[in-house]
Amino acid sequence: MHFTSERRLDGDVLERAFTLDGIPGVLWTPASASANAAMPLILLGHPPLGLARMYPRLAARARHAAADGFATATIELPGSGDRPRWAADEQARADLHRTLEAGEPVGDDIVDALVLPLVERSVPEWRAALDALLTLPEIGGPVGYSGGIISIGVRLALVEPRISAAVLFAGSYVPRAILEEARQVTIPLHVLLQWDDEANDRQSVLDLFDAFGSKEKTLHANMGGHTGVPRYAGDAAARFLTRHLMK
Amino acid sequence: MHFTSERRLDGDVLERAFTLDGIPGVLWTPASASANAAMPLILLGHPPLGLARMYPRLAARARHAAADGFATATIELPGSGDRPRWAADEQARADLHRTLEAGEPVGDDIVDALVLPLVERSVPEWRAALDALLTLPEIGGPVGYSGGIISIGVRLALVEPRISAAVLFAGSYVPRAILEEARQVTIPLHVLLQWDDEANDRQSVLDLFDAFGSKEKTLHANMGGHTGVPRYAGDAAARFLTRHLMK
Repeated sequence: MHFTSERRLDGDVLERAFTLDGIPGVLWTPASASANAAMPLILLGHPPLGLARMYPRLAARARHAAADGFATATIELPGSGDRPRWAADEQARADLHRTLEAGEPVGDDIVDALVLPLVERSVPEWRAALDALLTLPEIGGPVGYSGGIISIGVRLALVEPRISAAVLFAGSYVPRAILEEARQVTIPLHVLLQWDDEANDRQSVLDLFDAFGSKEKTLHANMGGHTGVPRYAGDAAARFLTRHLMK
Repeated sequence: MHFTSERRLDGDVLERAFTLDGIPGVLWTPASASANAAMPLILLGHPPLGLARMYPRLAARARHAAADGFATATIELPGSGDRPRWAADEQARADLHRTLEAGEPVGDDIVDALVLPLVERSVPEWRAALDALLTLPEIGGPVGYSGGIISIGVRLALVEPRISAAVLFAGSYVPRAILEEARQVTIPLHVLLQWDDEANDRQSVLDLFDAFGSKEKTLHANMGGHTGVPRYAGDAAARFLTRHLMK
């Protein structure tokens, strides 16, 4: 992990860009944190639109989390930003667009082709990032995951024992295989559903929520479309993470 | 409205029992409130099990609300406590029990017979109680409704313009007529659903949430069964009421 730049944001946050095996990422920490304090960490998930495009929303979430005492970090997804595309992914995105434009239902095969390779490729990268982040003296854990895409969050919740609570943003399609994996997830979960989100299938999100094996799971459904998560819903998600990760 | 008794509860709450046209009720106010301050009011809904049986849970909610600066009040439902039963209601409850014991689905006719007469009879009583409560110098509004049974809350939200926000506890069956009324409800709503509640039909609650015409509506689904609302879910509902009713 190599830090490539560093700057101070308004709101007393230190932002450091890094690369890890060629993957760009960003780490945010409260700038005033004591050098000896080992902070809890939230991995910030996001859709495959590229870190540059997602930056304003990610930085806002990082500022909010820093005010609560959390370090946050994120990495570029495979096929996004400057990272190489791959043909099957381009094909899957094209198939989805064509289906949506034709007003046809989005079938399981399209969802599988769109989401599963992204999960397969990205989850090991998030775990490697976690390895590297936890070697920093200022990062101590516990660790949470927060954001989309929801299938990456589900897989991480299942395979990464260092993640002890997750906020899952249900704003993307859910493959059948992920629904099955959800039954084995047991960590506390806070699922955010935008009720009239144009980018997901509501029933599949409700099925996913039902499937989770977690004893503590909560679903917050709100109005406002995919990008219209109300401020109070973000605050409630932050309280969930504080409740579970701040010891 | 005649106050029949008065006592001080732990946690600095004044509890006054009253009767209004023969209907028993209870009013709770922060004991330390200034005599000149006109407080916002929350009407506490509850299932038709009788105020005496519901008292511990109602008093806990009243204490919580008083700490947030709210007056709270409730009245006995028709057919509950010492209020006269009526034959059709007894019949409907018996039909429900028989159906549940036989493991059969609860049909629309049973739900209608069980819930609609209770809505028809109780809503005018809640409105009369509101008239009386708002004549007290210490109660000023705004007014919210919080609790079950959800159909009473829906009808009140629709017909009573003085109610400006509602927490609806989705722990009872929802008649089709109430689902239709929901489309005309426009006040901010916070709906609490216990995901594995044995006393409701989950799909009908999701349909009801979908139907509400309100621009701000939020659904919080949690685990824990009908009476197992997690503490954090109660806190979130209280924050919703504070956000909308505390000016």
